[in-house]
Amino acid sequence: MIAFDAHPGGYKHWKLSFDGPVATLSMDVDENAGLQPDYKLKLNSYDLGVDIELADAIQRIRFEHPEVHTVVITSMKERIFCAGANIMMLRGASHGSKVNFCKFTNETRMAIEDASAQSQIKFLAAVNGTCAGGGYELALACDEIILVDDGNSSVALPEAPLLGVLPGTGGLTRVVDKRHVRRDRADFFSTLVEGIKGKRAVEWGLVDRIYPTSQFREAVRARAAELATASDRPAAGPGVTLNPLNPTVTDSAITYSAVSLTLNRPKRTADLTVHAPAGPQPTSVDAILGAGDQFWPLRAFRELDNALLRLRTNEPEIGTVVIRTEGDLNTVLAVDQTLLDLRSHWLVREILLLMKRTLKRLDLTSRTFFALIEEGSAFGGSLFELALAADRSYMLHDDAEENVVALSEMNFGPLPMSNGLTRLETRFLARPDAVRDLRAQKHPLNAGEAEAAGLVTFAPDEIDWEDEVRMAVEARAAFSPDAMTGLEANLRFAGPETMETKIFGRLTAWQNWIFQRPNAVGAKGALQAYGQQGRPEFDWKRT
Amino acid sequence: MIAFDAHPGGYKHWKLSFDGPVATLSMDVDENAGLQPDYKLKLNSYDLGVDIELADAIQRIRFEHPEVHTVVITSMKERIFCAGANIMMLRGASHGSKVNFCKFTNETRMAIEDASAQSQIKFLAAVNGTCAGGGYELALACDEIILVDDGNSSVALPEAPLLGVLPGTGGLTRVVDKRHVRRDRADFFSTLVEGIKGKRAVEWGLVDRIYPTSQFREAVRARAAELATASDRPAAGPGVTLNPLNPTVTDSAITYSAVSLTLNRPKRTADLTVHAPAGPQPTSVDAILGAGDQFWPLRAFRELDNALLRLRTNEPEIGTVVIRTEGDLNTVLAVDQTLLDLRSHWLVREILLLMKRTLKRLDLTSRTFFALIEEGSAFGGSLFELALAADRSYMLHDDAEENVVALSEMNFGPLPMSNGLTRLETRFLARPDAVRDLRAQKHPLNAGEAEAAGLVTFAPDEIDWEDEVRMAVEARAAFSPDAMTGLEANLRFAGPETMETKIFGRLTAWQNWIFQRPNAVGAKGALQAYGQQGRPEFDWKRT
Repeated sequence: MIAFDAHPGGYKHWKLSFDGPVATLSMDVDENAGLQPDYKLKLNSYDLGVDIELADAIQRIRFEHPEVHTVVITSMKERIFCAGANIMMLRGASHGSKVNFCKFTNETRMAIEDASAQSQIKFLAAVNGTCAGGGYELALACDEIILVDDGNSSVALPEAPLLGVLPGTGGLTRVVDKRHVRRDRADFFSTLVEGIKGKRAVEWGLVDRIYPTSQFREAVRARAAELATASDRPAAGPGVTLNPLNPTVTDSAITYSAVSLTLNRPKRTADLTVHAPAGPQPTSVDAILGAGDQFWPLRAFRELDNALLRLRTNEPEIGTVVIRTEGDLNTVLAVDQTLLDLRSHWLVREILLLMKRTLKRLDLTSRTFFALIEEGSAFGGSLFELALAADRSYMLHDDAEENVVALSEMNFGPLPMSNGLTRLETRFLARPDAVRDLRAQKHPLNAGEAEAAGLVTFAPDEIDWEDEVRMAVEARAAFSPDAMTGLEANLRFAGPETMETKIFGRLTAWQNWIFQRPNAVGAKGALQAYGQQGRPEFDWKRT
Repeated sequence: MIAFDAHPGGYKHWKLSFDGPVATLSMDVDENAGLQPDYKLKLNSYDLGVDIELADAIQRIRFEHPEVHTVVITSMKERIFCAGANIMMLRGASHGSKVNFCKFTNETRMAIEDASAQSQIKFLAAVNGTCAGGGYELALACDEIILVDDGNSSVALPEAPLLGVLPGTGGLTRVVDKRHVRRDRADFFSTLVEGIKGKRAVEWGLVDRIYPTSQFREAVRARAAELATASDRPAAGPGVTLNPLNPTVTDSAITYSAVSLTLNRPKRTADLTVHAPAGPQPTSVDAILGAGDQFWPLRAFRELDNALLRLRTNEPEIGTVVIRTEGDLNTVLAVDQTLLDLRSHWLVREILLLMKRTLKRLDLTSRTFFALIEEGSAFGGSLFELALAADRSYMLHDDAEENVVALSEMNFGPLPMSNGLTRLETRFLARPDAVRDLRAQKHPLNAGEAEAAGLVTFAPDEIDWEDEVRMAVEARAAFSPDAMTGLEANLRFAGPETMETKIFGRLTAWQNWIFQRPNAVGAKGALQAYGQQGRPEFDWKRT
């Protein structure tokens, strides 16, 4: 079971150091500390455990170190920056593990780009040695790449020619869509095992600058300092410490302070419940700083994020998740308002961005989500995004008409999906005016109103409720899990595509396809043959 | 071997009739006339052969019947519009065949939408019976859908719940992205075997109108006539007859009048050569009408299109295609200019659109294309698009500097890719100014100039040429075919995404993934289990 928790004091693979506005995140993978004992993480190659630490470090820099404006990512190994995902790990992993591993590493790279675009933390890849595959993909996620010009160090995406798979962490997309490398050059580069170094790497746009070994360290230092000057992050802390979540974990449940996940393994379903905050909530920056990581939105969304990650990785057979909320709707709306009022403060901004990333994690989780909106629920504002993110929502049309949902300004901008639209905009592609009308109306909506407004899928009455919901969940859980994954991946992201949706849609889907092909994973496929005697044997048919 | 030729006189599955500005294309599939003998095409279900006739009919309406402004697509079977792709055919088909089948049917649906958007031929689906899966996807490709309200006829996408696969011909994408059906309703609809009929189908946006049986025929007639009034197509012909291409086919070559494809099976490569026109070419509408289907661009691109389709379907092991051109560059440029000068004429417009669709077919062909630009080549304007569509281009830097390429206005708009950009815009995402500069300069470029301008990938000199090109082709042909397919699918479509790229990228890649999964195609998978005793057995792990 993987818990997705990490703490700098316990990092096995990274060193995190601070020098004023510049943090340095140095990769120094312990080859004997892989998540599984059957591979060694040589040459700064990585597995999921290495990436969990990286994700943790970036999250901590955001929250615990507001004084950090630039992050330098580099290596402590001689002549090696990073060799990418560990091949022996990939060879031994199940299909699902490979896919989930790539998804998480992709989300981590996206979190880097989100920090750059939204938090004004700039990332500088200081590539001080060979940089291949996932190593180069990590560099591509940074704002700038400086490569040492030592006659040897290159950047490379050797996956296709060497292993018969794709660079699975956004490399192909970022080369052409972020760095705008010409597509014919990208084609040549991506079939070149040895990669490209020196001046050609700059000319082709694969890196930004090269420096000889003697000047490299100083050039990185100077550029990092320069990048740090443009940030609006504070010059000094204090930050907010992210303490361990410490959920109570049993065989069939994970219980946090504001989130609980209960598994029903025989039915292959889970119940995911988010509890609204109770009692008075902080309404000033000082009070929020005082509450720290116990401030409800920070706490609840960290917990939700962790629950989703555990579900994905540890519970592959749970195909359908029923989402509920509980508690006081009005308190949720009040917290939303506080966050929006104070959003210019760095900490509040970070909390909003964490909420956004967590909801994206839900969008990208390949499980069916059905939201159940019952009496006593708290589907308001930011929590209503859970219902909008779900594949369907069922709202009890109670006789008393006391079951309500409510919108807040949180539904109209701060929490966009990967496609760049809000969930309401995506939902109402046919009727942009409906989004405008919903924004104008300020009172909660009962089930009849919510259904008429298009905010929920179905609103069964008290007589039908139980049967209709039960049958919907049972029917869903009986469908082919693969068909549901494909269906949801296509229906959830209507509207425009972005680099992010391209990576999670087109690139990932092709990689998943290749990850099943005998030419990659068969007994004589390239991934199996790598490093062995003899060459892979291919079925030459093009598909 | 499938020849991809068809003629209305020989149609087995469609009836094409004309009534002034309205053509009616009636599906009447001969269940005993499938391409393979091991399935029967019951209930207007289809295989590739049915779709080849459909594609042919649409092409002929464009060229042979300029007086047609609306096409009604309907069925001649009782109570059945179309049951979609034949399941027994899918069950028996190899993975590659399934993928290629879906690609072609997708291109045919795109050709319908292209005819609507660009040729002002509107399409009306007159759904006069049950309409499921690919049947509904065909309707979705039309501008409008009228459904008979007979208490029985529904539209449905039952693939996921029934067969464990996706609707593979754009259905999911078009439901949310074209018809803007709300994503939660789309989710419900796409898991409903029996589909949706009557008023709910209209309310949800799945169809545009319903009529009771007694009014259906007249309503279709009236709406078709109404749609026809807005077209700028001529009120009367004559059109241009599309005669059979009749290439000379041997075991290792297909030779047309302006195109030749030579196969080198041991090396898994092919040489594809396009010959420029020779001698004086028509320069007026009358002369073009007189030349008919022998006018070079119409002839050459029809031949190229046919060569690509045969290559895809009949030669799966040919992984790398070397593209050459031969002849007089200036004649190509002169023909380009004629087409552009006369493009407001319906026939010239159709020729330009055919060129565009053929080049898109090349973009979407999962084979590596390397363009070789040697002395005596004719890579100018529209033919230079072949070099831009290729994954790489090699241009001989001859000592005499006589080897040249040239651009025309054809490279700056009329031949966009699926992503909506020209190939030059896609190539120079980093430098839009480069596209502007190239447009301003009017003389041919020798190899040094073309390389400096970024128009070709490499420009080896006479000493290096032979070895460099040979080694590049040999190296490419040795890589995993699957990795190359994934690589090219990701690198070729930089920049924005459109509904079209979504269908060919995201949706297709997921469908290809599912088409390999044991849950669909395994001995106990849903596709195998359909119609048999017992239910499918799934591996319940979500991926």
